[in-house]
Amino acid sequence: MDLIYGVIGTGAIGGFYGSRLARSGKEVHFLLHSDYEYVKEHGLQIDSCDGDFHLDKVNAYSSTAYMPVCDVVLVCLKTTHNQLLPTLLPPLLHEHSIVLLIQNGIGVEEDLQAAMPGIQTAAGLAFICSAKSGPGRINHQCYGSINIGNYSCRDEKRLHRVVTDFREAGILTNEVEYNEARWKKAVWNMPFNGMSVALRARTDQLLGPDTESLIREQMLEVIEAAQHLGVKNIDATFADKMIANTRAMVPYFPSMRLDYDHGRPMEINYLYTRPISIARKAGFAMPKLEMLEKELRFLESEQRNRA
Amino acid sequence: MDLIYGVIGTGAIGGFYGSRLARSGKEVHFLLHSDYEYVKEHGLQIDSCDGDFHLDKVNAYSSTAYMPVCDVVLVCLKTTHNQLLPTLLPPLLHEHSIVLLIQNGIGVEEDLQAAMPGIQTAAGLAFICSAKSGPGRINHQCYGSINIGNYSCRDEKRLHRVVTDFREAGILTNEVEYNEARWKKAVWNMPFNGMSVALRARTDQLLGPDTESLIREQMLEVIEAAQHLGVKNIDATFADKMIANTRAMVPYFPSMRLDYDHGRPMEINYLYTRPISIARKAGFAMPKLEMLEKELRFLESEQRNRA
Repeated sequence: MDLIYGVIGTGAIGGFYGSRLARSGKEVHFLLHSDYEYVKEHGLQIDSCDGDFHLDKVNAYSSTAYMPVCDVVLVCLKTTHNQLLPTLLPPLLHEHSIVLLIQNGIGVEEDLQAAMPGIQTAAGLAFICSAKSGPGRINHQCYGSINIGNYSCRDEKRLHRVVTDFREAGILTNEVEYNEARWKKAVWNMPFNGMSVALRARTDQLLGPDTESLIREQMLEVIEAAQHLGVKNIDATFADKMIANTRAMVPYFPSMRLDYDHGRPMEINYLYTRPISIARKAGFAMPKLEMLEKELRFLESEQRNRA
Repeated sequence: MDLIYGVIGTGAIGGFYGSRLARSGKEVHFLLHSDYEYVKEHGLQIDSCDGDFHLDKVNAYSSTAYMPVCDVVLVCLKTTHNQLLPTLLPPLLHEHSIVLLIQNGIGVEEDLQAAMPGIQTAAGLAFICSAKSGPGRINHQCYGSINIGNYSCRDEKRLHRVVTDFREAGILTNEVEYNEARWKKAVWNMPFNGMSVALRARTDQLLGPDTESLIREQMLEVIEAAQHLGVKNIDATFADKMIANTRAMVPYFPSMRLDYDHGRPMEINYLYTRPISIARKAGFAMPKLEMLEKELRFLESEQRNRA
């Protein structure tokens, strides 16, 4: 029998992956907030570099209370809303449900697990350029692969079926060891997200002559922290690879910069505070990223004071 | 016989100290740039917390070529103009002249000495809130003490006479070991100057809940670098003292912030690059201040690109 999917947070990420799963024939139930009425009536439009498509009939809900129990729940909220999960999730879960947290940062599974003992969680790290461009409309510009890492799924076969479902939906999907998945993504996220806010700069500007070395040094702090925590398959060459990849990309503003520009809270906690604290407890300091964290906290509270 | 003084850079600092020496009866010759005509005709006006005064007749010059030889030359330019000194200074110097560099940063005497071997130099660290408020007009808001440290004066008696002259001019003047003088000032300068630009913040904002710890950590980098370089009389308690002093001050924008806001070059080299490099050669890294240096270089070149 096919797995039934729920999507919490039908935006740039959840809207994209959920729609791709639905298009490939899976049963998918979407939680929506501001777009609920629109999507219920008009469906979801995906403008995509892989080909545009439209989902006419969408299982749309305004509350998880009305949603059916799901085998897999994709959590695609910003981590700044994760305090809502212990309220949102229970109606969706049965004993064998898997909660796949498609979010950036370090520590999200640990916190959710502490709040909801016994649930099965996994990490999803999305490598994608995607944005909401209107009500029920998502603009998928490029990329789209996902790395999935098992955090606490007892039922590994079921998690593997999720991987297969993603692949059948045309998504390049890798199974990666949990810590490797999260920390490798952090190598890019920690320097570029924060620095794009601190210096009000795009990715290409951050690779200019004054700051490329700083970006690399921050990447090395993450890589060395990960090594300290026992993550395999990561060394200094990974920084060079990430920098070369970023140079090859169309210049853009990372998600934290978009959050800042729109006056939304930034994902400082899971992108900076938690990994820095986890590394510190393991005896490793990340001084430049500590500084960046404090700069971001300052900028966020200044913005809040102005508002 | 009284010492004859020359002042290179008759602005907030040079205008203040030079005028106080002149008022106390010393012969002082002032090099002026944009204000030359005005000051030659109208003199210098010092609006001061210690009492306003006016110098009616000022020995004003538009070029050092027309100035007499001086026993003591106060260099009060921004360090971003120090490449001019080997051209500006020679007409002013005799065999026993002392060049007192009243400037912030680390390495200014070393560089000048390399360019002009044999001259006698000393460091002057000014603790003063002062600003040019108009042509020939200086607004001295508060403080005003100066720490003087001997770098290469063979004639220590003459340097001590300078100290005495400053004291007779009503300036609180301390003789301090050279490296101690420069590095102690750097403990304040390095965090507050750069951070006021990086975070577009005033001194009081930088001591808010998100950044006070960052300011302290940066101070500790300077203190530990200084200790590494053999500076005496400096330890972690000095950071607490500087923070407490800053809290007691009227909130203000440090000079680097004013330079940035006015599109002038910032003193990044002597305030950051040199001390960081000197410490690194001695085996000590200053990661947070390295990061700040790179942020400042980025912001300066962005500003230049926009101009």
